[in-house]
Amino acid sequence: MSKTNITATGQALWTKMPKASAELFALTYGALVTEIIRDYENINDVNSQLEKIGHSIGIRCVDEFLSKSELAGFVIPTCKNMRDTAEVVAKGGFKMFLGIPCEVANFNADGKAFSLIIYENPLSIFVEIPSTSEEFRGEDLSSICYSNIYCGIVRGVLESVNIKVICTFVKDVLKGDDVNEIRVEVKEILTDGAGDDYKEE
Amino acid sequence: MSKTNITATGQALWTKMPKASAELFALTYGALVTEIIRDYENINDVNSQLEKIGHSIGIRCVDEFLSKSELAGFVIPTCKNMRDTAEVVAKGGFKMFLGIPCEVANFNADGKAFSLIIYENPLSIFVEIPSTSEEFRGEDLSSICYSNIYCGIVRGVLESVNIKVICTFVKDVLKGDDVNEIRVEVKEILTDGAGDDYKEE
Repeated sequence: MSKTNITATGQALWTKMPKASAELFALTYGALVTEIIRDYENINDVNSQLEKIGHSIGIRCVDEFLSKSELAGFVIPTCKNMRDTAEVVAKGGFKMFLGIPCEVANFNADGKAFSLIIYENPLSIFVEIPSTSEEFRGEDLSSICYSNIYCGIVRGVLESVNIKVICTFVKDVLKGDDVNEIRVEVKEILTDGAGDDYKEE
Repeated sequence: MSKTNITATGQALWTKMPKASAELFALTYGALVTEIIRDYENINDVNSQLEKIGHSIGIRCVDEFLSKSELAGFVIPTCKNMRDTAEVVAKGGFKMFLGIPCEVANFNADGKAFSLIIYENPLSIFVEIPSTSEEFRGEDLSSICYSNIYCGIVRGVLESVNIKVICTFVKDVLKGDDVNEIRVEVKEILTDGAGDDYKEE
């Protein structure tokens, strides 16, 4: 699979997508995070809830991505391995939905874990993480994964193509890192034979 | 003030705005509405909360609008009356932040109430309002003003320029109307002299 191809496809799809203001999007996402912080008992639950919301968005995104590519006459190359899949997610999906570049990096030896590197995070343009917040009952907010919705989106997208993953923010510019890095670990790849179990019941 | 001018300015500002996918924005807003429905006791409170969130976004939007126009070399015409102000909100603000056309209509005789007509609502592209919902403890969801954030945004924007208004969704495509109509009623215009009260304290 050619990297250039998928990069061009992602760029072309992004051009065709209906758009909203990135600032309004960032402010709306901020309002969502604020509501969730108000609702949940601790920061781990806040992070999980953001991931869960991302997951259900991710499931929709993959349909959009495939149908829009087809309509526009683009052929999404068959992914023969996780390296191909990672490139399609980074160069196709992230570009199409966020309009931002995303790089694949740090594949481990067995090819079952990799990182998505995001240099600019449109969600966080207005955000500073306070170390403590009265609104959150004085609890330390510094462990929040503010943009955890991305992790859920990636999990949802990959689940839709039968790849079960766990995604974690390992670097976050909001916490002082130089880039945003999402670690994607493949847990299971469901093969076509998975339906056999179902038949046995 | 020329209508063409402000329409062109709104269009030019929209072109310059950083963008996100309208679909991702709509899905994120949907997640926000869902969280709020889960949190609040009744639908009136849900509507108020959406309006309140819009209000704080509106206050930010007006700064963005003014600073971006200035940076881009556009002169926002002085609004001599509510008709001018309404045109700037509709043709400038709505276009800049949502990329959609918005019309001013139905000014009342004293010029203190008007409607903003929105034909396409990017927030509601994936939405159908159920008449009842188990998730909302069986209560009727049909009185939800799904896009009430707009009302808050308009209130926040106008408050920032010293005009106190109340905004209400009077027509909603989600409820079967042919257009979306937000009624804007001016309650008070704070003049420069308002500071005098402050001094007296």
